[in-house]
Amino acid sequence: MVTIKDIANKLGVSISTVSKGLNGADDISEEMRQMVLDTAVEMGYAPKRGKKPGKRRVCILIENLEYENIDQFGYEIVLGFKLSAVRHHCEVSVIPTNLNLLTREKYDCFMLKNGFSGAFLLGFALHDDYIQQLNKTNVATVLLDNYNPNPFVGYVGTDGYHGIDMAIKHLHDYGHKKIALLNGSKNCMVTNDRRLAFLQAMERYSLKADPKLIANGYYVADCAKDYVSTFLNHGATAIMCASDLIASGVLYELKRLGVRVPRDVSVVGFDDLPIARRLSPSLTTIRQDRLSLGKSAFMMLEELINGINISKVLLKPELIVRDSTGPNPKL
Amino acid sequence: MVTIKDIANKLGVSISTVSKGLNGADDISEEMRQMVLDTAVEMGYAPKRGKKPGKRRVCILIENLEYENIDQFGYEIVLGFKLSAVRHHCEVSVIPTNLNLLTREKYDCFMLKNGFSGAFLLGFALHDDYIQQLNKTNVATVLLDNYNPNPFVGYVGTDGYHGIDMAIKHLHDYGHKKIALLNGSKNCMVTNDRRLAFLQAMERYSLKADPKLIANGYYVADCAKDYVSTFLNHGATAIMCASDLIASGVLYELKRLGVRVPRDVSVVGFDDLPIARRLSPSLTTIRQDRLSLGKSAFMMLEELINGINISKVLLKPELIVRDSTGPNPKL
Repeated sequence: MVTIKDIANKLGVSISTVSKGLNGADDISEEMRQMVLDTAVEMGYAPKRGKKPGKRRVCILIENLEYENIDQFGYEIVLGFKLSAVRHHCEVSVIPTNLNLLTREKYDCFMLKNGFSGAFLLGFALHDDYIQQLNKTNVATVLLDNYNPNPFVGYVGTDGYHGIDMAIKHLHDYGHKKIALLNGSKNCMVTNDRRLAFLQAMERYSLKADPKLIANGYYVADCAKDYVSTFLNHGATAIMCASDLIASGVLYELKRLGVRVPRDVSVVGFDDLPIARRLSPSLTTIRQDRLSLGKSAFMMLEELINGINISKVLLKPELIVRDSTGPNPKL
Repeated sequence: MVTIKDIANKLGVSISTVSKGLNGADDISEEMRQMVLDTAVEMGYAPKRGKKPGKRRVCILIENLEYENIDQFGYEIVLGFKLSAVRHHCEVSVIPTNLNLLTREKYDCFMLKNGFSGAFLLGFALHDDYIQQLNKTNVATVLLDNYNPNPFVGYVGTDGYHGIDMAIKHLHDYGHKKIALLNGSKNCMVTNDRRLAFLQAMERYSLKADPKLIANGYYVADCAKDYVSTFLNHGATAIMCASDLIASGVLYELKRLGVRVPRDVSVVGFDDLPIARRLSPSLTTIRQDRLSLGKSAFMMLEELINGINISKVLLKPELIVRDSTGPNPKL
């Protein structure tokens, strides 16, 4: 266990200088402060994690994920996290990041300097610099929908296997056989999970997965227009989408092509965003309980801070059946 | 939400009689008490879950799992659960079950009668009657290494995919190519997971999984004798075992056959029970942090009681390298 004294010895300065550097006191130079922080991180120093949870501070770092109004995916996740944090007397800072912040400062250094015991990272991509740095961090960190083998890093998400299974069963019960999958962006862990889940579920219900009916778009509505016609030309009577936003694009494109939903084609989404019920027709979708995702992320972060190496926390999804699914018209 | 009044109306008795029946008062007849409980369960009555955690009572039901001394698999799991419960002012009863208890009383009825808000079930098999009843329970329940789709039921375990991957990588680094898997009992969820994890890892390291080198035994040492010779006859230079007990049997059988470990054959276990370091040679194994499993089970149970539908909590395994693994002798 590295102590403040070890850092002082290494730098040849007094313990009080190190302490000032770590605690952000303003009566030492900025250069000294940065040197103290860099050395502390390099030596693997971790501030004593207060026994009193009242003193704990954590943060939510958000990149590339909308969370500011209730219609957006991140809103309830952030809210759930904060609700649990309040209950546990923990202070939360919500920090939108940007390339500038991320390139200026290393993750561990940023956390130490700001006195955060842990962080919940939302919306980062696998190739982001911060995510790469997580391989070696000793700061308790929770990722949404992303995995890292480091024992200090945990992953919270929704059990997509269970969710996709329920959706395919629902379509199978309606007699659909040619089911398409319009998936999300390729460089994303959940995209791969959803593809595997789709293949497994198709096999479970003795349906044939046709490679021509599987495509990778992006997690935005606009990607639908490139794939819907192809799916229809290959006989699809149902389209499973990897998100509600993608599904909203599919509904729009089907309408443009004069294809009726669900009479001609059924559509299923994933997420159950608030827009799902307002689409026309209202969208059958797999619900991610985002409030619980946020609450679970906080609980997981607390456990990681307490030294319990939780790897994954997965929530149960729910199939919300609305008006965008119906019987296979070709039966 | 079913109330005490609803139960009273249905039975045509007074509210106070129902209340006495639910709370175990002794001034009503045993028949009336049973009728009240049966009706309450049938109507889906759930006692108000106290806002004050100090008043909460939960139980650990244990079947067919040894936990009474520190060498046994269940010991630290039970301990971890109790440690977390104490910290959260929750009372825990540890109840070894048996066929008699299980057939006499339904799960929901047992829980309601004893005033338990939730249970952690250890060692039950998938076909056990209690596990079947879980499909319809509304009592918060956590299973070790078992899955149930009911939102009130969660699953805690160790990430076996990650564990097996580390073990196969370790053997691959030592140049092993013909790796056998001696798996556990067939009617067990983790057995299936470990088989899939093994196949995935072999593929990842470009190794060929030979069906003749994969077998299902049982989670006891004694099963090894039926398979070790076959594995050797088919050229295995390493044996991956689904538990430390199985591995202890494999070491014994190899010694009996005059095969040296690790010079001729490498052996890997799973669990890191206390015996693993005392075997000769000491056993390379995948560590399940059982104290953390217990702590996480409690944390998960609390969340389920609070209405958060967590599906799975998986802990990170660790590869503990000892003396039972070494270079492939055929290189």
